[in-house]
Amino acid sequence: MAVAPLCRDEKPAAGTGLAARLAIRAGQRAPTAGIAPGYVQGNLAILPKALAADFMRFCQLNPKPCPVIGTSEPGDWRVPDLGDDLDIRTDLPRYRVWKNGELVAEPYDVREFWRDDLVSFVIGCSFSFEEALVSEGIELRHISLGCNVPMYRTSIATHEAGPFHGPMVVSMRPLKPKDAIRAVQITTRFPAVHGAPVHIGKPELIGIKDIMKPDYGDAVEVRDDEMPVFWACGVTPQSVIATVKPEFCITHYPGAMLVTDRKNTEFAIM
Amino acid sequence: MAVAPLCRDEKPAAGTGLAARLAIRAGQRAPTAGIAPGYVQGNLAILPKALAADFMRFCQLNPKPCPVIGTSEPGDWRVPDLGDDLDIRTDLPRYRVWKNGELVAEPYDVREFWRDDLVSFVIGCSFSFEEALVSEGIELRHISLGCNVPMYRTSIATHEAGPFHGPMVVSMRPLKPKDAIRAVQITTRFPAVHGAPVHIGKPELIGIKDIMKPDYGDAVEVRDDEMPVFWACGVTPQSVIATVKPEFCITHYPGAMLVTDRKNTEFAIM
Repeated sequence: MAVAPLCRDEKPAAGTGLAARLAIRAGQRAPTAGIAPGYVQGNLAILPKALAADFMRFCQLNPKPCPVIGTSEPGDWRVPDLGDDLDIRTDLPRYRVWKNGELVAEPYDVREFWRDDLVSFVIGCSFSFEEALVSEGIELRHISLGCNVPMYRTSIATHEAGPFHGPMVVSMRPLKPKDAIRAVQITTRFPAVHGAPVHIGKPELIGIKDIMKPDYGDAVEVRDDEMPVFWACGVTPQSVIATVKPEFCITHYPGAMLVTDRKNTEFAIM
Repeated sequence: MAVAPLCRDEKPAAGTGLAARLAIRAGQRAPTAGIAPGYVQGNLAILPKALAADFMRFCQLNPKPCPVIGTSEPGDWRVPDLGDDLDIRTDLPRYRVWKNGELVAEPYDVREFWRDDLVSFVIGCSFSFEEALVSEGIELRHISLGCNVPMYRTSIATHEAGPFHGPMVVSMRPLKPKDAIRAVQITTRFPAVHGAPVHIGKPELIGIKDIMKPDYGDAVEVRDDEMPVFWACGVTPQSVIATVKPEFCITHYPGAMLVTDRKNTEFAIM
């Protein structure tokens, strides 16, 4: 296996997923939100092969929080489904490396940590459906405010597989009732990137005690003429992996996603 | 034009729309809820031709409360789109006849009131989407209780056309949040029979002061773990016509709908 080149003779079109990856590979370290509009971004989880089958089954059993959009061969840093010139070790702006559940490093590339038994899982991300919502004229407050979406551990259990189990994490967007209905319709079209909401209104019914105190991300106001709308969140697999404390694991650094060559629109089922 | 026969040599299959119409034509007077399962039922409005173009435009501008599924030629009591052997004057269990906005009769057939300038409008009805919801395992309380669905005049204005204007009337079904999301998905598939909800949660935002005091139908409890889900209602055109007080008009008697030969499933857009 040849190492993917860090530069190329031919420059990819600006604004594409490939251009974003090459820029990141060459040292760009900004969060990926808003770069390469239209291209799918993904959450990353890299696990030893010994855990990969159970984790794959966990994802298959929990498609709303864990929609797998790409996987690698063991030891291979390529993910051909998601891009031709793609090196999972260098193409994200930043990573987190975990040993026995402890965070041991937050490097800008993971070539020095690579092992022959590592399997990469790329999991769909809410950026894709948010783009669809925004392009339909639905305002998303956390984007308007330039903060992170609020996320909550819920009382909704995931379906367990091997050692993997734990609560579903959800993200929340406040919407007017009419927009909430429209958002159900729009996101239903994107099952590979979390799909339709899992809950609407009434946070207490899914174990959320205080909507203004998210477990991850930033608090965002829910106004009187709005209702909180909850989607299954890609933080779920990270939270579940943290519980399992695997001997070794790599994830993306929050906000530093994998930018792929796939278009968001490809993931619309109709 | 020949008068449709009141009896036939060949008996239609039991449980079909045609069998229901022939039974009604022969004198059966029960409400139509639950008869001919799987067949589309419709609201009826019959207006003089002088008002028909404006009313048609009103319906076209307000497809959610007024989805037209069939119309007649002026003076013709047939509606070929909805059934071959169909006489709009005899095939509903009961009618209401209005003059200048006053209810003047509630007859079992309207042959004696017929005029050469009358145009029939058949408008989709919630029975169709309710069947789809129930077949997906969603419990509808008013059906479980054997009462009428609660309906409300709202602060949502319809788009006016000619003399036709007025508030949208909605029907309400209490659902658990998860079922509410599923109900948006299911009813979105049926735009010809009111389609997706127009509002969800927060009745006060659409001018409903007391959810336990519907303007039509029966009150139905909304439990703590449920939210009210509101659909545009076929009572809207009747309410709008009542406001206009046309010189002459015929509508169906509440609950006494036209049973057609069309299948509910034909109206699913996917």
